[in-house]
Amino acid sequence: MQLPEKVTLREVAMRDGLQSLKHFVPTEQKREIIAAVVEAGIRRVEATSFVSPKAVPQLKDAAELMGGVPRGRATYAALVPNARGARDAVAAGADEIVVVISASEAHNRENVRRSIDASLAELDAVFEIALSAGVDVIGSVAVSFGCPFQGDVPEADVLRIVAQYVRRGARSVILADTTGMAGPTRVARRVTAFRERFPDTHLVLHFHNNRGTAMANLLAALQAGADCFDTALGGIGGCPYVPQAAGNLATADVVFMLEEMGVETGVDLQKLIPAARRLEEILGFTLPGQVMKSGPRDPRLAAHICGIGKALAQRQQADS
Amino acid sequence: MQLPEKVTLREVAMRDGLQSLKHFVPTEQKREIIAAVVEAGIRRVEATSFVSPKAVPQLKDAAELMGGVPRGRATYAALVPNARGARDAVAAGADEIVVVISASEAHNRENVRRSIDASLAELDAVFEIALSAGVDVIGSVAVSFGCPFQGDVPEADVLRIVAQYVRRGARSVILADTTGMAGPTRVARRVTAFRERFPDTHLVLHFHNNRGTAMANLLAALQAGADCFDTALGGIGGCPYVPQAAGNLATADVVFMLEEMGVETGVDLQKLIPAARRLEEILGFTLPGQVMKSGPRDPRLAAHICGIGKALAQRQQADS
Repeated sequence: MQLPEKVTLREVAMRDGLQSLKHFVPTEQKREIIAAVVEAGIRRVEATSFVSPKAVPQLKDAAELMGGVPRGRATYAALVPNARGARDAVAAGADEIVVVISASEAHNRENVRRSIDASLAELDAVFEIALSAGVDVIGSVAVSFGCPFQGDVPEADVLRIVAQYVRRGARSVILADTTGMAGPTRVARRVTAFRERFPDTHLVLHFHNNRGTAMANLLAALQAGADCFDTALGGIGGCPYVPQAAGNLATADVVFMLEEMGVETGVDLQKLIPAARRLEEILGFTLPGQVMKSGPRDPRLAAHICGIGKALAQRQQADS
Repeated sequence: MQLPEKVTLREVAMRDGLQSLKHFVPTEQKREIIAAVVEAGIRRVEATSFVSPKAVPQLKDAAELMGGVPRGRATYAALVPNARGARDAVAAGADEIVVVISASEAHNRENVRRSIDASLAELDAVFEIALSAGVDVIGSVAVSFGCPFQGDVPEADVLRIVAQYVRRGARSVILADTTGMAGPTRVARRVTAFRERFPDTHLVLHFHNNRGTAMANLLAALQAGADCFDTALGGIGGCPYVPQAAGNLATADVVFMLEEMGVETGVDLQKLIPAARRLEEILGFTLPGQVMKSGPRDPRLAAHICGIGKALAQRQQADS
């Protein structure tokens, strides 16, 4: 199986994961989680969004949060919806900003209440603000694999937006399966097309699990040459505009699978699992991540970290 | 991507899915679900186990259930732990019986309280009972990809048990990832080794999702040439001897992914999704299946079956 040697994970739990939660998570606890994932080895964090506090009250503490993240070991990205958000993010010390445009007209209108062309028109200002301050811009293409309103999204509609990002200076582009409509062959085709057309642009994949395919899509993307993925601690998240949307790929599950295949992530499950369990404690409900419940493969580690198998091991010892 | 044209799914919800549930599901409701999945196009059903009613009270109605399944459109398998179970299953009209031995000594002792050799010793009687009645035997190898007590399980230990099944006349063999310890490369290696050594034996894969990798494992198995999988409606299930065990692959999620890749399953999601929702209603708790919540890719179908996107579509129409 053709696989990359190393993969980079972008941790998006505190942004994509939290944004649709009504109950406000205190800034101190957001920072605690960010510090814990960085301590576990995560080096790229999408920490927050600089959006209207009315639209997303959960992220109203964006500037305060960015002021208190542990610097030096990771880079911190912030999502911005417009030039104003870009200015705020730069002022707050974001290392990267993320801009989003949907590949379907219907989803872009639903998401930001304007046309794709209107979104593209604001890109110049956003890139100018960021790049002149030495801040990288990551361009994200929402509904890159299917749109909940329109259905299929033509490849050309996705690549057209990528081209707009690249020509303005984006070095990384995210293709997002915003509502979990992708399957592995579609993903392989998109990744291959992207890499052929934009060989110098770093591709990031962002998969949601609305139809149970996110991890298989990750595998297909890996095989097609992708080496960077958005994941969320505990698998939290979901597009707030889609009812019953399922979460992101769970960071620990992805680390487990990659390491089990011999692909390096630089992330230590023994530190990451307690972070996911702490997040579950903070949020107060069961998270969809699986490895945080079952532990690593090694039975001693699984027992040590999760208590899994301990009772059984003891019973067995008593039997023998 | 190398994929088979067609895949067969074995529906195991009523056996593996229910066996660890304490609340008894009435026989009539089990039959209703079986009839619904057969109506949706499922052609192989593992319907129950002929085990001690004390050990698994949920399946105490095995004979009664087998007496009332819709014959003629699907074959019905029953799991049996021993010769007595085999006699009961054959008498009740099972088309196939499934026998299970673990590839690790520790798991076999935990599961059936005897050694692998003791389990192998009973195989002759079980095969004799079944084959002389014209009933096929499917041999299942538990913990084929890792054991919660021992950790790694050598390939030779798995293939040794397969060989015992094959030489007694099993035409199908199940490799089971009983506690979800497999990753895709391990799966690809096992499938390849199996197909090289037993080219005339039909391989079935049975994946649990304890570590979030089940769907990626299915993709890897497909690419290595596998074309038959155990799945459970709604993704219910889990080994009752492993705490916090996660479920089986959800049938609708697998059908969705395969059809989205152009692989035929013969199963109609429009009929399968309501069956999964009915099972959720019967059980009274939220099931892990995703497509049963999000619907197919086609927005009109998703709205029709699951109500997904309907509200949004209406809002959009009002906007435009």
